[in-house]
This record gives sequence, structure tokens and C-alpha cells, in this order.
Amino acid sequence: MNQIKDKSIDTFLTELASRQATPGGGSAAAVMGAQSAALTSMVCNLTIGKPKYAEVEADMQALLAQSESLREQLTAMIKADVDVFDSLMAAYGLPKDAEEQKTTRSTQIQTVLKEATIVPLNCAKACAEAVKLAKIAAEKGNLGVISDAGVAVMAGYAALKSAALNVYINTGSIKDREFAEQKLIELESILKGADVETDEVYQLVKEKL
Amino acid sequence: MNQIKDKSIDTFLTELASRQATPGGGSAAAVMGAQSAALTSMVCNLTIGKPKYAEVEADMQALLAQSESLREQLTAMIKADVDVFDSLMAAYGLPKDAEEQKTTRSTQIQTVLKEATIVPLNCAKACAEAVKLAKIAAEKGNLGVISDAGVAVMAGYAALKSAALNVYINTGSIKDREFAEQKLIELESILKGADVETDEVYQLVKEKL
Repeated sequence: MNQIKDKSIDTFLTELASRQATPGGGSAAAVMGAQSAALTSMVCNLTIGKPKYAEVEADMQALLAQSESLREQLTAMIKADVDVFDSLMAAYGLPKDAEEQKTTRSTQIQTVLKEATIVPLNCAKACAEAVKLAKIAAEKGNLGVISDAGVAVMAGYAALKSAALNVYINTGSIKDREFAEQKLIELESILKGADVETDEVYQLVKEKL
Repeated sequence: MNQIKDKSIDTFLTELASRQATPGGGSAAAVMGAQSAALTSMVCNLTIGKPKYAEVEADMQALLAQSESLREQLTAMIKADVDVFDSLMAAYGLPKDAEEQKTTRSTQIQTVLKEATIVPLNCAKACAEAVKLAKIAAEKGNLGVISDAGVAVMAGYAALKSAALNVYINTGSIKDREFAEQKLIELESILKGADVETDEVYQLVKEKL
């Protein structure tokens, strides 16, 4: 079957809008995060090699390597979200007639719920990184495309906050509270300061226009 | 030639990242706005017809009609951004050897700059509408998919702020200051309150999870 990333934007949007549960917000978050990384790459690509920006050439080369690696990770996460959702639905669909079946089903649901927490948590981490990379692009990139760094920071932040919602949903149903609380602490540390950072980068870009 | 919306997500992201000037932040904004509208539609589609949500059935039907119309508009804006950028590059590329050519070129640039202001302004308007529709989805939609309304509001807000950057860029170069100032006033009125509204919707969704 075609992966979502291989579908047209129009088809993706139509499937997002449909009554099918996937793709949903988790995949949309990964797409936004990947757009953020892609725009940071664009700013790098349009800064590298320009004599006017020779001073930041090495920084931009390093930034491009990071943003392209991040774009690849986030593109893979579009599918990861669908896969873990399918696994969760499969676990909920296990038979629950006999007592033994109930136990097996419950254990399987709990295992997949942990996975369904880690997937958006990893997405949130990648998106927080996308915000940081967009900041460097905004600080050092070609002024002619600096607005693209501004779009990159907004896309990364929206993706981060979106991924966070998917962490909250799944931790709520996890019985291993130690695991759940630990993941929520990790999430809070990822989210911390991202709102202020995003505002600062946006203002910086606006002043440079 | 294939429109961007007909390209795969992976191809779109690769082109976004490339050293080509288009697609850029303007198209990325329209894609995020369209994702927002699509997710609001998804919440509607998964609320409509459920006996538990019979009370909001008519509201959800009306919301779906609006969000689907908005999704169509925003999908068309992915291309509009590229088209107006191409027109602007064509205008800047006009010959400027003779005095008469200089005048023609300058007039043409100014005409297209106005168009290049109106295109992202219309996108910003549509994205502000996407935020408002996501709010209704968050207030009345099926609790089982309420996180998707949260992603919708974040995507719509990021798209709105991104489109605004493209308005700022182009108004700066417009000589008809009355036109430019009027468009900036319109933009401020579109942006007004969107940050607070987005935060409120996000908090509402988080509390409902």
C-alpha cells in the first residue's frame, strides 16, 4: 500500500477530512514538522554559496545537514502515527469473551498505549528541534528569504503543540502511572520555553523584513 | 504542469527544501491552513450521525459545509502563492535599458506587488476563519477525536501568522502607501485576538482529553 508521504497533497487532505480515523492529527503534526524542517533547509540552500553570506557559510552547511536529517525523521513519523493507531485499534479489537482473553487483550492494549505515547513524544522532540533550527535560520539566513524562517518556526511550534496533545491522550489510559508520569515530565521539558522562543523568532523575522 | 496539490507530500517537502524559490513559505502556509480545515471536517464527519451527539447534529452539518468550502479555498491558495511569485519575478525580469522600459517595468512591478499583497491577505483571512471553525469543532465535536480540533486550531494559527509575514514583505515595497496602509490595517484586524482565541481553544481541548 502507498505510504501517506507518497500520496498527493490533495488526497492527503481529503483523507484527513474524511470519517476515517487515520490519517488524523498525529500525521498532520508530522507533516507540519517536516514543512518546518524543509523551510529551514530552503533558507540554508538559498544562503550557502552567496558571497554576501560567506561568513555564515559553515554554520549554514551544518544547519542544512541537521534540518535535512530532521525532515527525513519527521517524514517517517507521518506513517508511524498511522501504524501505532492501527496497532491500538487491533489491540482493542482482540476477543474478550473468556477471562484469559480479557487478560491478554488488556496487556496488549497497555503495551501498545506505551508505544502510542512514545511515537508522539518523539515527534514532539523532533518538532522542538525544528523550532531551534528555524531560529538559527532566522538569525543567520539570507535576508531575502527570511520570512521562510518565520514560517518554519510557526510550523514547528504548531507541530510541537499538536504532538503534545497526542501524548496527553494516550498517557491518560496507561495503568503504569510511573511510565506515564515520566513521559509527561519529558514532554513538559520539551515544551518548556518553546512558546517564548517561537514568539522571539517571529518578532526577529518581522523586524528583518 | 502538475499543480503542487497533485504532487506527493514527499515531493512537495523536497521542493520546499530546495534552492528553488517556489514553493516557499506562502504555499506552506496554505497547506497548513488546508490541514486545519480538513481536521475540522474530520471532527464533524466523526460526530455527525452519532446518537450521542444528536443535539449538535445540525451545527456539525453546518460546520462541515463551511470547513469543506474553506479547505477548497485554501487548497487553491497553494498554487496562487506560486503564481503571484512567478508574476513578480517576471516583472522584475522586464528589460530596463531605455527610460520607457524602466517606466513600464516599474509600473508592472507595482501592479504585481499589490496582487502579491492581496494573495497572502486572502490566505490570512481564510486561516483566521479556520481558527474560528476549529473552535466550534472543539466546543461541540465528538470527544473521541477532540484532539484533532486542537491540531486544527494550531495549524490554522500557524498558517495565519505565516501568511501575515508574506503580507508584510510585499507591502514594504509598495509605493502606493494608502493601499499598503489599508491592507496592513485589514491584516491587523484579521490577526486581532487570534492568539488569545488559539490559546483558549487549545486549553479547552486539553481539558477535555
